[in-house]
Amino acid sequence: MATKKPLDKEQLFAHVDYTLLRPTATLAEIELMADEAVRYGAASLCIPPCYISRVRRHCPGLTISTVVGFPFGYATCGAKVAAAEHALEVGADEIDMMINLTDVKNDNILRVMTEVAVMKKAVGENILKVIIETCYLTEQEKIRLCEIVTVAEADYIKTSTGFGSGGAQLADVKLLSKHIGERVKIKAAGGIRSAAEIEEFIRAGCARIGTSTRYKELFAGK
Amino acid sequence: MATKKPLDKEQLFAHVDYTLLRPTATLAEIELMADEAVRYGAASLCIPPCYISRVRRHCPGLTISTVVGFPFGYATCGAKVAAAEHALEVGADEIDMMINLTDVKNDNILRVMTEVAVMKKAVGENILKVIIETCYLTEQEKIRLCEIVTVAEADYIKTSTGFGSGGAQLADVKLLSKHIGERVKIKAAGGIRSAAEIEEFIRAGCARIGTSTRYKELFAGK
Repeated sequence: MATKKPLDKEQLFAHVDYTLLRPTATLAEIELMADEAVRYGAASLCIPPCYISRVRRHCPGLTISTVVGFPFGYATCGAKVAAAEHALEVGADEIDMMINLTDVKNDNILRVMTEVAVMKKAVGENILKVIIETCYLTEQEKIRLCEIVTVAEADYIKTSTGFGSGGAQLADVKLLSKHIGERVKIKAAGGIRSAAEIEEFIRAGCARIGTSTRYKELFAGK
Repeated sequence: MATKKPLDKEQLFAHVDYTLLRPTATLAEIELMADEAVRYGAASLCIPPCYISRVRRHCPGLTISTVVGFPFGYATCGAKVAAAEHALEVGADEIDMMINLTDVKNDNILRVMTEVAVMKKAVGENILKVIIETCYLTEQEKIRLCEIVTVAEADYIKTSTGFGSGGAQLADVKLLSKHIGERVKIKAAGGIRSAAEIEEFIRAGCARIGTSTRYKELFAGK
């Protein structure tokens, strides 16, 4: 960001992956969020896989993100690839995958690398965001994952699922932006609940912000 | 249980699905649990899908349970079936599946029924446990799910993932045992951390108990 001029609502919301990933989310709630994502111009709507085809019918032009291996990441690579391919078939545009943290903790970096690369191959021209769940990682692990995401040619590195012990941190965004390749973008997610926070994370270098906070609440009083 | 005579360690542990499902669990931790499951005679070892093939090589004779659609349940039915089939191929014996709570909350009982039936077909002669995550359900929903699990011919109804807002409750076990068919067994999981609690849940009618508490701690002082 060259300018320090405050971003307006439209500019801020254009960075938002408007998100509803609660296990008990109803179709009515999801469709309401979909309508708001279209009306206010979100970057995408991020929803559970089981809702993709219904939302695709409800809002044909909407960009739909979905999650794979979420939120724990320890499904097999084969299961994740199959889930991603199926999600794209039924109408998803972008895939937010959770890496396998057990491979990170086993120091089996080759397995992490292979999985992200295979997922990017499966996702093809569509956008792949790679969630690393920073709250469970050491600084060294975060740096290593920046290299992996870059070499595997994923589109985004994403801080958090929103269901771990911690969410997005500005310090992490600064660290990641130092270590990712120039083609990799950053998505911050987890605990971001106001327009001011969205702006802060954008200014720190994030191209996307995940939030489950509703539009009216985000911009209350603006 | 006809008798009120206390069960011994071996009898209690024979009901236990010895569980490690933390997203950061290392191979060393998993293998330690596998060795204890064999040594002390657990009903099964319940582990993430990504570890099945390694544990199968480490302990050829061990009964391995794994999780599908875990812990949120909102993957597509196709993705769950593929994950279950793959898990069985690489060495799992039992599948603990999470139902799709969004279908329950949308009152789309036909989708829940279809998914459980299709999963049982995929799992075949192997054991299928159906997790309903009681903490998010009304009494009416719990009763309805007992009927579904019975008609779909699943082997177990399971109270909880252990990652929801609440775990196994004796009152739920009593309710489920009233409404399931006679071929369906009950697995209690979530928050059970002592031999005394294991015994209580067995006496309430559970055939299996999921616990992540280590053997030595479960039976400390016994």
